Amino acid sequence: MNSIKKVVLAYSGGLDTSAIVPWLKENYGCEVIAFVADVGQGAEELEGVEEKAIASGASECYVVDLKDEMVSDYIYPTLKTGSIYEGTYLLGTSMARPIIAKAQVEIARKVGADALSHGCTGKGNDQVRFESCFAALAPDLQVIAPWREWDLSSRESLLDYLAERNIPCSASATKIYSRDANAWHISHEGGELEDPWCQPSDQVWTWTNSPEQAPNEPEFVTLNVVEGEVVAVNGEQLKPYDCLVKLNDLASVHGVGRVDIVENRLVGMKSRGCYETPGGTVIMAALQAIDELVLDKASRKWKEVLGGEFSHLVYDGRWFTPLKDSILAGAEALSTVASGEVVLKLYKGQVTAVQKKSPNSLYSEDFATFGADDVYDQSHAEGFIRLFSLSSRISALAKK
Amino acid sequence: MNSIKKVVLAYSGGLDTSAIVPWLKENYGCEVIAFVADVGQGAEELEGVEEKAIASGASECYVVDLKDEMVSDYIYPTLKTGSIYEGTYLLGTSMARPIIAKAQVEIARKVGADALSHGCTGKGNDQVRFESCFAALAPDLQVIAPWREWDLSSRESLLDYLAERNIPCSASATKIYSRDANAWHISHEGGELEDPWCQPSDQVWTWTNSPEQAPNEPEFVTLNVVEGEVVAVNGEQLKPYDCLVKLNDLASVHGVGRVDIVENRLVGMKSRGCYETPGGTVIMAALQAIDELVLDKASRKWKEVLGGEFSHLVYDGRWFTPLKDSILAGAEALSTVASGEVVLKLYKGQVTAVQKKSPNSLYSEDFATFGADDVYDQSHAEGFIRLFSLSSRISALAKK
Amino acid sequence: MNSIKKVVLAYSGGLDTSAIVPWLKENYGCEVIAFVADVGQGAEELEGVEEKAIASGASECYVVDLKDEMVSDYIYPTLKTGSIYEGTYLLGTSMARPIIAKAQVEIARKVGADALSHGCTGKGNDQVRFESCFAALAPDLQVIAPWREWDLSSRESLLDYLAERNIPCSASATKIYSRDANAWHISHEGGELEDPWCQPSDQVWTWTNSPEQAPNEPEFVTLNVVEGEVVAVNGEQLKPYDCLVKLNDLASVHGVGRVDIVENRLVGMKSRGCYETPGGTVIMAALQAIDELVLDKASRKWKEVLGGEFSHLVYDGRWFTPLKDSILAGAEALSTVASGEVVLKLYKGQVTAVQKKSPNSLYSEDFATFGADDVYDQSHAEGFIRLFSLSSRISALAKK
Amino acid sequence: MNSIKKVVLAYSGGLDTSAIVPWLKENYGCEVIAFVADVGQGAEELEGVEEKAIASGASECYVVDLKDEMVSDYIYPTLKTGSIYEGTYLLGTSMARPIIAKAQVEIARKVGADALSHGCTGKGNDQVRFESCFAALAPDLQVIAPWREWDLSSRESLLDYLAERNIPCSASATKIYSRDANAWHISHEGGELEDPWCQPSDQVWTWTNSPEQAPNEPEFVTLNVVEGEVVAVNGEQLKPYDCLVKLNDLASVHGVGRVDIVENRLVGMKSRGCYETPGGTVIMAALQAIDELVLDKASRKWKEVLGGEFSHLVYDGRWFTPLKDSILAGAEALSTVASGEVVLKLYKGQVTAVQKKSPNSLYSEDFATFGADDVYDQSHAEGFIRLFSLSSRISALAKK
Repeated sequence: MNSIKKVVLAYSGGLDTSAIVPWLKENYGCEVIAFVADVGQGAEELEGVEEKAIASGASECYVVDLKDEMVSDYIYPTLKTGSIYEGTYLLGTSMARPIIAKAQVEIARKVGADALSHGCTGKGNDQVRFESCFAALAPDLQVIAPWREWDLSSRESLLDYLAERNIPCSASATKIYSRDANAWHISHEGGELEDPWCQPSDQVWTWTNSPEQAPNEPEFVTLNVVEGEVVAVNGEQLKPYDCLVKLNDLASVHGVGRVDIVENRLVGMKSRGCYETPGGTVIMAALQAIDELVLDKASRKWKEVLGGEFSHLVYDGRWFTPLKDSILAGAEALSTVASGEVVLKLYKGQVTAVQKKSPNSLYSEDFATFGADDVYDQSHAEGFIRLFSLSSRISALAKK
Repeated sequence: MNSIKKVVLAYSGGLDTSAIVPWLKENYGCEVIAFVADVGQGAEELEGVEEKAIASGASECYVVDLKDEMVSDYIYPTLKTGSIYEGTYLLGTSMARPIIAKAQVEIARKVGADALSHGCTGKGNDQVRFESCFAALAPDLQVIAPWREWDLSSRESLLDYLAERNIPCSASATKIYSRDANAWHISHEGGELEDPWCQPSDQVWTWTNSPEQAPNEPEFVTLNVVEGEVVAVNGEQLKPYDCLVKLNDLASVHGVGRVDIVENRLVGMKSRGCYETPGGTVIMAALQAIDELVLDKASRKWKEVLGGEFSHLVYDGRWFTPLKDSILAGAEALSTVASGEVVLKLYKGQVTAVQKKSPNSLYSEDFATFGADDVYDQSHAEGFIRLFSLSSRISALAKK
Repeated sequence: MNSIKKVVLAYSGGLDTSAIVPWLKENYGCEVIAFVADVGQGAEELEGVEEKAIASGASECYVVDLKDEMVSDYIYPTLKTGSIYEGTYLLGTSMARPIIAKAQVEIARKVGADALSHGCTGKGNDQVRFESCFAALAPDLQVIAPWREWDLSSRESLLDYLAERNIPCSASATKIYSRDANAWHISHEGGELEDPWCQPSDQVWTWTNSPEQAPNEPEFVTLNVVEGEVVAVNGEQLKPYDCLVKLNDLASVHGVGRVDIVENRLVGMKSRGCYETPGGTVIMAALQAIDELVLDKASRKWKEVLGGEFSHLVYDGRWFTPLKDSILAGAEALSTVASGEVVLKLYKGQVTAVQKKSPNSLYSEDFATFGADDVYDQSHAEGFIRLFSLSSRISALAKK
Repeated sequence: MNSIKKVVLAYSGGLDTSAIVPWLKENYGCEVIAFVADVGQGAEELEGVEEKAIASGASECYVVDLKDEMVSDYIYPTLKTGSIYEGTYLLGTSMARPIIAKAQVEIARKVGADALSHGCTGKGNDQVRFESCFAALAPDLQVIAPWREWDLSSRESLLDYLAERNIPCSASATKIYSRDANAWHISHEGGELEDPWCQPSDQVWTWTNSPEQAPNEPEFVTLNVVEGEVVAVNGEQLKPYDCLVKLNDLASVHGVGRVDIVENRLVGMKSRGCYETPGGTVIMAALQAIDELVLDKASRKWKEVLGGEFSHLVYDGRWFTPLKDSILAGAEALSTVASGEVVLKLYKGQVTAVQKKSPNSLYSEDFATFGADDVYDQSHAEGFIRLFSLSSRISALAKK
């Protein structure tokens, strides 16, 4: 590894990255530029983050607003593939990583840095996601992953490390859960969740009401969808990010979007996570409802193939690859007809599409019901069945 | 078509098949044997069915109990593949068709019949399912599908037809919904459901409470799973069919298992259906929870491929085909480790797995958390990432 | 079926369609417009075809040159997916059907016809391909398939039919093989080929030398490929159709491109066909060689999925469907890097890519060989292997 | 890493592993047990191998005959899936690795070793394959990969290393190609092959005649296949390994089985390899011919999915995984009908199935040809086409 002069660190203002700033300076003798991605994690997390970075020893701090771009260019493309990782996980953390990595590289180019750094641990997926994106976008830049190098393995040792250097830090010595938030979701790991036999306690969840605490009356929300993207909520035209924020508000009240799973990490072991994706869960239900109307049988089956493959691609951080371009192009093609209107019911943790229509609907009351029509002659069914089952018939006859 | 002497009719006791009995006799001059499959549709539907059949003119009526076999040999194999049709439909009607067709063929062989008949309409999936199974199991037997031949296209004309022949029938002239039930589910079509913009009314649902009417307190149920099959409910060892019945009781109280979708029929058009699968929904959630613990990443991804393919196979009635044998063999192999215990919470229409464990779990608290262990050295991650992303790196370098 | 006034017939000038012209007039009382698609089947087949059509009773005859469009808009898109039906068949007949159907519909619109007709038999794939395209492009037009209606089931009866009407026809009463040709290939069915235990006789093959008769010296040909399309042969820039013609000439001399298979027809039974695709086989080998250089492992695996699905789509005549758009968009995305140069050896029935290079090659001698380099540190392999196999390790430890 | 007492080395008698014996003893202070797998690499390579091992310093040498087991338990299962890696590579090296690893672990258990070692380089696939198998079979044993540790990176330095220790070695200082052989194939890498623009010279190929040197007369060979396995060659019943040996002899004369490709290694870079698989290529052609007769359309398409997935699994060394069990179970199910007889023509580098038959054939001359039959009524085709294309028709109508 060549000597490093200037490193751009993905900085959050939390304990870990606060310690990484001085650690990088001491261990690599380099200048540290803090980069903060605003992906909708909330004002609280961003408040004073520049001051904190400078106080930790960063020579500069860039806060970049990625909220709109994340929703439009990373989340919606993924939604158009129908990706759900391992049947349940809506990929909230995964989808944010490539845009953060891309913006981080852009800052590195701007400031003339020769290295990139992040605060991901050595057992998680995020290190792979970040560094795979770096490899695709900036193969010439070195990567420093302090958690794989240092021996500061506890919160106490990190706090001591900062205290020794007189770096102020408001973090507490104990933190039960590890959380990650962006506009799409918040994730929770650690604490009692490490035992899958242990039900999550109330303290785990931070965004949503519990179904029990949710209102006793259902709420109905109307979404308008154009080519696979939500463009209006309850009749109000909004850009994608603002739709998501509004739906987060509506759905979290009703306890919608909680998930509690054991998943396969890319690095070979399993982990248990709880996720809250209130608005996203509503959006998924709406898009599924539109698909029911507009996709024919073969297209819908194919979309499951696209989504199955893409869910792993996103989870694994393989965003900046030719495979991503290929699957997305296929999904975009299917989404050209995915327009319409859906009314969804929010109630006690559940979202249900109760009304749906589309100008591109292939459903027709005339064709589906049992009366005669011009399109479908019931006598055709015999011929269809005979040829559809012909190989079974031939096979059965051959066995005789 | 050769002249037919004796036909075995899949008889339900309802209006349609009551009329088919005399219609077959008059139009084909043949003897009619009624065959009634008991697949758990309920005592009410079966009560007096033999008398009715004879009264309609059948020379014999066979009622065959298929309940245990259906759950063990058709439903559980399908569950082991993880099949869900078009993301939502739990295949309740589809899974029952092959076993009914198979038993019907067995009766035909027993009585020396030369034809088979059913009361499926000419626009639906069931005609294809039945006749595809017949083609595979009895290619020598002729098939009569009255709905594709006759001109008795309304309930009134069917009632008139029976009245003219003095055949008693308790059916009413108006029936809003078309329903089909077995131990796994009940389906509802017709009426206001023909407009997807129309929310289902309360009369649609017959098995489950609405979430609003469900108890305000959650209920917890414990399932024990052995190799992909539920063997005990709340600690009580039960055979598969009895587990299902018990879970239907528990889950329907809490409004669990309602689905309202527009789906692609095999015959090329879309239809809208509402389904209630209370116990099945609980079982699916339990099996998914076990899979989370025991399947590695590649196996789980593969299982999605198996389930995607198999869901169409079951929906399409292609049960008695080599493809079924192949996919099932693959699913059985994955299921050998699918054992464990799951606690599920039933509340206001939702089922959630809140506790899960398995003797074959690949989850390990030691490996997942951030402390050191013998299996995973965090320094390995760097090498992994470098090679995992190597083609991206090479591609990026090649572009320079 | 409504009464028909004007029908456009896909006319070839052969015995079948010559008889269909008067048959349509007599049986439907309609005007018949002959439509001849020039898809490169050869000057011999097209010579005098207009006169023949008029002599048969057609009121007009349109000959439309589709050669360039077929190669550019149907064959190359299919090649970009890597489609090979059932591992062997290069889809020569299948790829021509949609463009013929589309041009036929355009003529129908131009002349104000209310029906379409074709000369496909009732057991083959082509009837499905034509009529599926008609359904997508002109659902309002009626379709007449004489072979499924009439009783003129032998060549003798067809000749008699024409003779009775004094329609001149040079066809002979006996014809062993049924053949279909276009610029891409010629197919052969019938005669001794109907027994798969029977080796094809020399008379089957019409385009290519047998390997035994091919020259004793190999010939080398150089192809230049740009984004998945051959643009030059032996250094000469040519448009796609002309490349194909030139390669047909070169490759047929060397006996390249013969295939003899039993395949699954869409309509449920198997058939045996022999195909000659000389130039196409060379093009496939060149494109495969470029893919070897430019596609990473995941992209190449994905391309197999695209090709597997698309081969059935093309074979089944499902060209004008949303699924086609989706898969093609995915394939086009992968093809953006498929540029380069390939030298191929033609010898005694075989084509072998012996030299290959690409500006987008991911192959690098420096990286592949065992010396040190900047991109790959051999010590990374240990970490890679440890995490790559971690779930196996955990599983093995769990079993203890 | 704990201190190691006894290591079992996969020993070949070549230069690399001859040096590894003393290197292990000196660097780990451990006893070295040589393990030689006889996988059909040939008598020449095995001659005197035990003496060599002892002379190098091994305390014992076990030569284990794995030939029959490799063909029966690793090659044929793989063949039943139809696996071909990236469209061309018949997986010769890949299929041998798991059985060698398994036997090596068995020796380690027998002698009470605490570590395993191999001579694979740090940039290749084999290190991953061996160590992934070790992880699954013996997660408790340590693994030593000298090529990733030492600095003996040239043949000269290895020869010097041995000379310094007075260990006799007949290896020469220069060796152009790196080769690996077993009963199924021989691979060649290195030398001029490192440039894909360079055609392989004659010295590359060691098993087969060039097509040009092959006899001018074709040779015909008859294979009998039972459930996916070749059981007789030219009428002579032979066990699987002996069939393969005999076919290697026959096919290599005719230049059959050469392949020259650039492939994607698992570790992220591409490499160029030449392979000779004479007998295997003949077997593949025979099995493909049988599949043409016995598999219906859906089964054959599914088999492509199985083979696509399994080819990567085998290539990647993921043999001892649940995914292997699942895919193989699916392939075994399809193979139950894969019986029959095939005559193949060997000529100038090509193998062609020219005659094929099967007791389970779904091909029937009666059904395929155009005459009437009992199974297929041509009028059925209309109904089939109408429903098969119904969604296209509805979609087209909906657009109006």
